[in-house]
Amino acid sequence: MTDSLKNNTRALVLASGSPRRKMLLKKIGLPFSVHPGNASEHYDANERPANIVQTLALRKARDVAAEHPSSVIIGADTIVVHRRDILEKPESPEAALAMLSRLSDDTHAVLTGIALLKTDDNALAIEQLTFFESTDVIFGALNEADIEQYVLTGSPFDKAGGYGIQDDWGARAVKRINGDYYNIVGLPVHALYNQLIPFAPELFNG
Amino acid sequence: MTDSLKNNTRALVLASGSPRRKMLLKKIGLPFSVHPGNASEHYDANERPANIVQTLALRKARDVAAEHPSSVIIGADTIVVHRRDILEKPESPEAALAMLSRLSDDTHAVLTGIALLKTDDNALAIEQLTFFESTDVIFGALNEADIEQYVLTGSPFDKAGGYGIQDDWGARAVKRINGDYYNIVGLPVHALYNQLIPFAPELFNG
Repeated sequence: MTDSLKNNTRALVLASGSPRRKMLLKKIGLPFSVHPGNASEHYDANERPANIVQTLALRKARDVAAEHPSSVIIGADTIVVHRRDILEKPESPEAALAMLSRLSDDTHAVLTGIALLKTDDNALAIEQLTFFESTDVIFGALNEADIEQYVLTGSPFDKAGGYGIQDDWGARAVKRINGDYYNIVGLPVHALYNQLIPFAPELFNG
Repeated sequence: MTDSLKNNTRALVLASGSPRRKMLLKKIGLPFSVHPGNASEHYDANERPANIVQTLALRKARDVAAEHPSSVIIGADTIVVHRRDILEKPESPEAALAMLSRLSDDTHAVLTGIALLKTDDNALAIEQLTFFESTDVIFGALNEADIEQYVLTGSPFDKAGGYGIQDDWGARAVKRINGDYYNIVGLPVHALYNQLIPFAPELFNG
């Protein structure tokens, strides 16, 4: 009785400032708070992309853990991989144009790493789980004028790979995907929900 | 000069009352009006699903054409196919429950047929084009209590197959897709955009 009472008070924390991740986590149907940390996003480019996103996701979750006792903290990191190169957020209009031009008429992968970190009453990590989800995205042939117009909207600059599939432009550009759509937006909702239930069943008893 | 002036005044009409199709057509970036008709949705279940959706889409476009001179009218129809059966909108909570239970842990296809109909100054059809887009959807294993809760929201009843992938429940249920995401929501945005440009380039000159 006391145990289940304590369990029911476990908090869920999203360690990400992305408004898209916040919107997607709502689909799980649980209350949560948002706490973006300041973890370094540095990684070793020689590592496998699946390892990189899980390492960064775990680092983000750990970065804020000390402030959240009796919680489950969700860290997430998304990268775009095209022909073995990792594409980050473009830092200039020229970089965005070049990035989107190389994605034209070709397939790339969007990988999101997720870390789940459980803390005890003293905010010490007592359990962790990481996984990743990969979705293939096939772009149609893009023309340069169309890309330039999109870059002018400013949307590419806060997005790995330089585009949002949920944008009007993204909806027109993407021919097909293979995998979880929401993973491309920034959070693999189906996998996260199905990993979260066994990891922290007490979250779902409220 | 006169010709291009006339062409630039061609109107775009969506022959569908679906709020989701209206939202998706906005992604094309063109102004349009909405005119849902009263075309019969009857079809011969022995026909191939790809033919059924194109036939119904064309019927919907033709149904409203007489009222729209100098226009391009878009008709659309979406069906769900599971193990050769066509699943329509469920008509009762029991039907919705049965429909979603059979989709659990299995693959189904969502087909949308599109018809483009061009009319002259007298609202006579002068050109038409139909095509369809198919997207495979793989559901995870669903439990009955979870399905029941979703049916109680009322969302299944206006949706072929009994679910919306854009709903919170749909996002959790769908493990992966293969094809165009927006085709599942009700309009294949990428294909429609790329068919519309050569079919009616004058729409894009405005």
